[in-house]
Amino acid sequence: MLDQKAHKPHERLAAHLKDDLSQVDEMIRARMASEHAPRIPEVTAHLVDAGGKRLRPMLTLASARLCGYEGGHHIHLATAVEFIHTATLLHDDVVDESGQRRGRPTANLLWDNKSSVLVGDYLFARSFQLMTEADSLRVLQVLSNASATITEGEVLQLTAAQDLGTTEDTYFKVVRGKTAALFAAATEVGGILAGVSEDRIKALHDYGDALGIAFQVVDDLLDFWGGDATGKNIGDDFRERKLTLPIIKAIARGDDEERAFWKRTLEKNDQRDGDLERALEIMTAHGALDDTRAAALDWAARAKACLDALPEDPIRDMLSDIADYVVARLN
Amino acid sequence: MLDQKAHKPHERLAAHLKDDLSQVDEMIRARMASEHAPRIPEVTAHLVDAGGKRLRPMLTLASARLCGYEGGHHIHLATAVEFIHTATLLHDDVVDESGQRRGRPTANLLWDNKSSVLVGDYLFARSFQLMTEADSLRVLQVLSNASATITEGEVLQLTAAQDLGTTEDTYFKVVRGKTAALFAAATEVGGILAGVSEDRIKALHDYGDALGIAFQVVDDLLDFWGGDATGKNIGDDFRERKLTLPIIKAIARGDDEERAFWKRTLEKNDQRDGDLERALEIMTAHGALDDTRAAALDWAARAKACLDALPEDPIRDMLSDIADYVVARLN
Repeated sequence: MLDQKAHKPHERLAAHLKDDLSQVDEMIRARMASEHAPRIPEVTAHLVDAGGKRLRPMLTLASARLCGYEGGHHIHLATAVEFIHTATLLHDDVVDESGQRRGRPTANLLWDNKSSVLVGDYLFARSFQLMTEADSLRVLQVLSNASATITEGEVLQLTAAQDLGTTEDTYFKVVRGKTAALFAAATEVGGILAGVSEDRIKALHDYGDALGIAFQVVDDLLDFWGGDATGKNIGDDFRERKLTLPIIKAIARGDDEERAFWKRTLEKNDQRDGDLERALEIMTAHGALDDTRAAALDWAARAKACLDALPEDPIRDMLSDIADYVVARLN
Repeated sequence: MLDQKAHKPHERLAAHLKDDLSQVDEMIRARMASEHAPRIPEVTAHLVDAGGKRLRPMLTLASARLCGYEGGHHIHLATAVEFIHTATLLHDDVVDESGQRRGRPTANLLWDNKSSVLVGDYLFARSFQLMTEADSLRVLQVLSNASATITEGEVLQLTAAQDLGTTEDTYFKVVRGKTAALFAAATEVGGILAGVSEDRIKALHDYGDALGIAFQVVDDLLDFWGGDATGKNIGDDFRERKLTLPIIKAIARGDDEERAFWKRTLEKNDQRDGDLERALEIMTAHGALDDTRAAALDWAARAKACLDALPEDPIRDMLSDIADYVVARLN
């Protein structure tokens, strides 16, 4: 059944879970509809069709199948996970935009902001409707906890932004919130649905958590390392004054002159031509990029190690390959 | 135990439910806290302390008690209802770009849109955590359905805004969404928790629905009738070009000259000095304000009629008085 053209591990997993995934696609379309407010699927379709890799819902499907689940509720949960992810993307847009544009936005922009807020809320509510259909209070607990953690991570990121005192500890709290919490919940609920042992549920959670952290650390590194694969421009985080791991490492190792540079560019937002190049130079000199890469590799290795507790299965091998692939983006 | 100074029916109900309400206050404070993101309670405290009347959580407590509930989970559900309400207020302020709420500057002005969006999300997630603790999937269904309906109502309001073709039918769909859905869910879940008959659960739902509609119609009328009690300025909805019931009725009864007036002021957003006065004049001439008042009285009467299906109890009398009081704001 494997798609011959699928070389990347998440594509192989997608081919393996093809039938489940097409049911998820169908459910996404059905549940984002609104009888009373046709504007809702218009806004959502844009995001949902743009596609992404459906990585998070795929993790839920894979976990459930890996644990021998034979029912149909993993489709509901995978759809719920994708809705939560899409809702946070919509709200992130508002959060990031409002940072850049002060004063009154244009009518067009205004409409976008309104739609993003409300349609995000709609998807969030829909995701909880879907979860109730899976008939498991524990699943609802895990996913509502994850939702709270996601938001805490985003708020923490806001308050930590532009703060040169941000520690690696704070950085990882933010990353756990904004990325790893949903990965971990996505894998965990597959195991809960299948009714496996607490050890295996924990292993699934820890795999998702470590994978999510590796994923985000790589993303933050690619912002400096080479942005083509992510669709971001090199230096976006620097310009937005986000304190990501490479910068935090470089700041900690810098001398007074470098500290003044970070203070000017990140705290005081006085950025000039050549500053991004200078930032890269400083980070390279202190080995901050290499050490961030090592951290990403370490988290990917931790993710793979968690899989030992789970049954041997082609899906398990693909999940392991996905952990490798996440950091292979750095090569 | 009645507070002698409590004359208004919602104050009498609050006095009657004093112990429950103080537990709700305690839970609100405990659950809006965030270990990782102290900004969250700062933003929320602003809204939660400003108080409001806690009408929605009180409806949940009242329903549960009226139905003989003896457990403790009504506290969780009442807190969840208040969190959903507060989350929608935070997001509404971003959508409306409003500057004032409950007589104080809104969170989005005091902090920024980012905080309003994210803290709203946080409260929404927290509300679902609280619901899972009440151990009833049905309650989760009712409240996640209500959450979806709330958002549909808001989106519908956005798309109907500035549209002179908006019908009373659309208006009531919006009102059901933005207001009545949460009132109805708040009362319904009290009955579900108490395990009463389907007839009584439906009566509680219908009471909340009708009360919520009466409440919103009155609110929309007060925007023209006299705004002091609501903290709104007279004519806010007109300036924001919201098609509320009095305007919809006036448009439907207007002649060509009046239609041109509505077109200019509401569709084209060309509002000049004296336009609000002219709008009031037209609405008065067509009896649109009086007829809107009659509609509000009718919905309040429907709410009271639903209570017949419920047990005789001082709480039932107070719920009936609250329905009267909601429209008494018009006198």
